[in-house]
Amino acid sequence: MSSIIECIPNFSEGRRPEVIEAIAEAIKSVDDIQLLNYSSDQSHNRSVFTFIGAPESVKEAAFKGAKKAAELIDMTKHRGEHPRMGAVDVIPFVPVKNITMQECVNLTKELGERIARELSIPVFLYEESATRPERRNLADIRRGEFEGMAEKIKDPAWAPDFGKAEIHPTAGVVAVGARMPLIAYNVNLSTSDINIARNIAKIIRESSGGLKCVKAIGVMLEDRNLAQVSINMTNYEKTSLYRVFELIRTEARRYGVHIVGSEIVGLTPMNALIDVAKFYLQLEGFDDKKQVLENYLL
Amino acid sequence: MSSIIECIPNFSEGRRPEVIEAIAEAIKSVDDIQLLNYSSDQSHNRSVFTFIGAPESVKEAAFKGAKKAAELIDMTKHRGEHPRMGAVDVIPFVPVKNITMQECVNLTKELGERIARELSIPVFLYEESATRPERRNLADIRRGEFEGMAEKIKDPAWAPDFGKAEIHPTAGVVAVGARMPLIAYNVNLSTSDINIARNIAKIIRESSGGLKCVKAIGVMLEDRNLAQVSINMTNYEKTSLYRVFELIRTEARRYGVHIVGSEIVGLTPMNALIDVAKFYLQLEGFDDKKQVLENYLL
Repeated sequence: MSSIIECIPNFSEGRRPEVIEAIAEAIKSVDDIQLLNYSSDQSHNRSVFTFIGAPESVKEAAFKGAKKAAELIDMTKHRGEHPRMGAVDVIPFVPVKNITMQECVNLTKELGERIARELSIPVFLYEESATRPERRNLADIRRGEFEGMAEKIKDPAWAPDFGKAEIHPTAGVVAVGARMPLIAYNVNLSTSDINIARNIAKIIRESSGGLKCVKAIGVMLEDRNLAQVSINMTNYEKTSLYRVFELIRTEARRYGVHIVGSEIVGLTPMNALIDVAKFYLQLEGFDDKKQVLENYLL
Repeated sequence: MSSIIECIPNFSEGRRPEVIEAIAEAIKSVDDIQLLNYSSDQSHNRSVFTFIGAPESVKEAAFKGAKKAAELIDMTKHRGEHPRMGAVDVIPFVPVKNITMQECVNLTKELGERIARELSIPVFLYEESATRPERRNLADIRRGEFEGMAEKIKDPAWAPDFGKAEIHPTAGVVAVGARMPLIAYNVNLSTSDINIARNIAKIIRESSGGLKCVKAIGVMLEDRNLAQVSINMTNYEKTSLYRVFELIRTEARRYGVHIVGSEIVGLTPMNALIDVAKFYLQLEGFDDKKQVLENYLL
């Protein structure tokens, strides 16, 4: 059985199509890589690529993408709404099939070592690959962004895991790490009051005492005039989609508000949805591995 | 992309392990066949095999299983609770991957023709392969069972689709056909009154005016002293699991009864469960094909 990894690198370029295409070409130039999609955000000035393949191929494609970004993106000229610290900002590896998290961690370390050595970009290991607890969270590593990183990296507490304590002058620094699949999940409320979405987001997110592995903010869906709880689920095995959905439903009741719909942005592993079905159908003794037909085809 | 079919043949032997093993060996002797499981029921005196593989391999394995059953099973001596009409009683083909229902229909016709010609067993095409509406339903073909089939088959209305109008003296007749995946689904009620399960079964099943593609009976779970609605879902795309579950929940309320749990017996396609998740999460604009990661790995 072959092994499959998913890689979702983020690049600090969302406006120049020729740069985005050049990165896509670099990734696709590696044999056996399936580039599932890539999308750019103008105001964030940022692009997200998603590709899958065998471990060694994914490592090679991630390196080639990083190299191309370092060639074509100058962070001293980059402006955008999304926090960022490097031309290739973050490179997550996600185990998909026949591979453990620990094997993914090892691969990110090999990739990080090579990026530092060949591209002279300092590398921070994050999430499951993190070498210290305070480096698990990407936001903590990125605090200060590209502009503050030249100073920050000289602090011994923020010495990079690979490379010298000196940013690449135009490509900055990069975070590389193995993690669980992330599910981008939004729940739309029957109100145009963004404060209700914000209050609910605060209740459900881990950082303010809510559900484990849930990040959430309240935003406005301007075109539909609806308030939305916008969520990142960082580990659907620890906190399932249905639990988030039901907690939002419950909390919304306080305001006489109900859920008008929800959406998953981008990809989700089938198991995240099968968990939901198991809950609502009150399924007894269901064995995903043996009873879901597709598990015999993967 | 390679094509995959699932085949779930039923054999009229559930007591003699050496016969069951011989059939398993015949099926497994075909290259590239994955025998997912097989299980026997003593009181039914019947075994169900599930295997998948490429179309030509599945056709060959189904033929080899039928041949072995015809050699080893004598229907004149068969006793069992489950209705049956042949040593190999029924051979369904289910499209799983990169293959249309029509292609499966064509394959069942090729298989049926060969069984009639080489094994002298008359073949009825059923479900999607049926040549007349009154032959779609297996129960209608099988009515009269093995003992009545010698007479029934002489009626021009019941002339077989392949072979002579004369049963095989010991192997009887067989039904061959393409169909959607069948989901065996049971819902357990908070009552020991089987009449409640029977009444609900009657309300939900298609034959008495309920939901399309739903067969249901009320049974007793003796070991748990619970009444159960036992369901066969013959097309989960037309009637989804959640609709059956919610209708049972609603109807049970009339008796002050609730659902204590449900179970899926054997295999289900992942899409049947993803449909359930989409309903309960009120998912908007979710595209299974593009958003479920596993669809890129199949």
